[in-house]
Amino acid sequence: MTTASEIRIAPSILSADFARLGEEVAAIDAAGADYIHVDVMDGHYVPNLTIGPGVVKALRPHSRKVFDVHLMISPVDPFIEAFANAGADIITIHPEAAPHFHRTLQAIRALGKKAGVALNPGTPTDVLDHVMPLVDLVLVMTVNPGFGGQAYISLPEKIIDVRRRIATMGRAIDLEVDGGITPETAKEAIKAGANVLVAGTAVFKDGPARYADRIRAIRGG
Amino acid sequence: MTTASEIRIAPSILSADFARLGEEVAAIDAAGADYIHVDVMDGHYVPNLTIGPGVVKALRPHSRKVFDVHLMISPVDPFIEAFANAGADIITIHPEAAPHFHRTLQAIRALGKKAGVALNPGTPTDVLDHVMPLVDLVLVMTVNPGFGGQAYISLPEKIIDVRRRIATMGRAIDLEVDGGITPETAKEAIKAGANVLVAGTAVFKDGPARYADRIRAIRGG
Repeated sequence: MTTASEIRIAPSILSADFARLGEEVAAIDAAGADYIHVDVMDGHYVPNLTIGPGVVKALRPHSRKVFDVHLMISPVDPFIEAFANAGADIITIHPEAAPHFHRTLQAIRALGKKAGVALNPGTPTDVLDHVMPLVDLVLVMTVNPGFGGQAYISLPEKIIDVRRRIATMGRAIDLEVDGGITPETAKEAIKAGANVLVAGTAVFKDGPARYADRIRAIRGG
Repeated sequence: MTTASEIRIAPSILSADFARLGEEVAAIDAAGADYIHVDVMDGHYVPNLTIGPGVVKALRPHSRKVFDVHLMISPVDPFIEAFANAGADIITIHPEAAPHFHRTLQAIRALGKKAGVALNPGTPTDVLDHVMPLVDLVLVMTVNPGFGGQAYISLPEKIIDVRRRIATMGRAIDLEVDGGITPETAKEAIKAGANVLVAGTAVFKDGPARYADRIRAIRGG
């Protein structure tokens, strides 16, 4: 099992103040965030519309932490290069949004970025069967994506399955969990094998003075 | 012809700093902007993805000026209510993105908002034939929408045609022009009958200290 010092926290700016995102990104960086998680939605793959590559580009100078960009857009291919150029470090895609899923992962890698695969709650882990050599992160969604503030869907066996697949690869691959993460649900996800926890509401809900406490509580340290 | 005092300037925050949009909105308000113009793009109706209703909601407390929201999203119907609830005052749609165009305009009005119709450079003014009673603003695009910084497409006869249609209605309807607006192109558009000028780069390019000068120059006062 992963120890607390190896756990990474990725606050999702979906729950930040969109009127001052630069400050928010700098604040979570200072509060100990490991990754800056960016939820990109287009109103097609999911029923919400959030922020695009221009916003990522504007935020990039506000933190040197890893920009972990989760693309909930369909089709995703036309935007891979824009997010790479905007300063994403990890680009995570959904197989349902990429008809040539293997090629899209190759394209992300070819741009010098890390490639992630996101699994909706109902998506089987079998979609990973033939692409693991191209994968740097697997994101197990514990809510159906679209909106912040939803309740955690407990899927420990799915997380265990993904951890087992990662173990066979013999290299560092992140296992990220996103949706309904609190200090309590984080504990369950970590026990099952997650090493990166995305958290929106649980980090941002009480304002900047509490960001460091909140991140520490989710990390379980 | 419209006099300088009747001209309204609508800076487009597409050209603002996305990392501190709240401050940017307050700054253009203080600099004399009449409307706050918000360009919403979904990567489907146009090949760019910008900001959604959550951002509009976050910006609403930063200005009491008119929020003039231009929806370049298709289909547009699922998002009308979200933008109304987020604080839009004017909601402008494209006929190509609304298969039941007349009904969508009714829906915007039913939510207590002003309804706008946007015409791409290639869209004929005939789309207005049967909807003028539902229209509070006509937006003549002088670039093909998607990105800031494009060159003005001169369409004076189209603007004159729209002004003539408005004149027959006997009530205040805005004639807005958007795309490549500078103090020079604004003069041409105003001469043809425009009374609201959207400007992005021309307002924002030299930073907040110049916003008031830039707005004044476009207004031609």
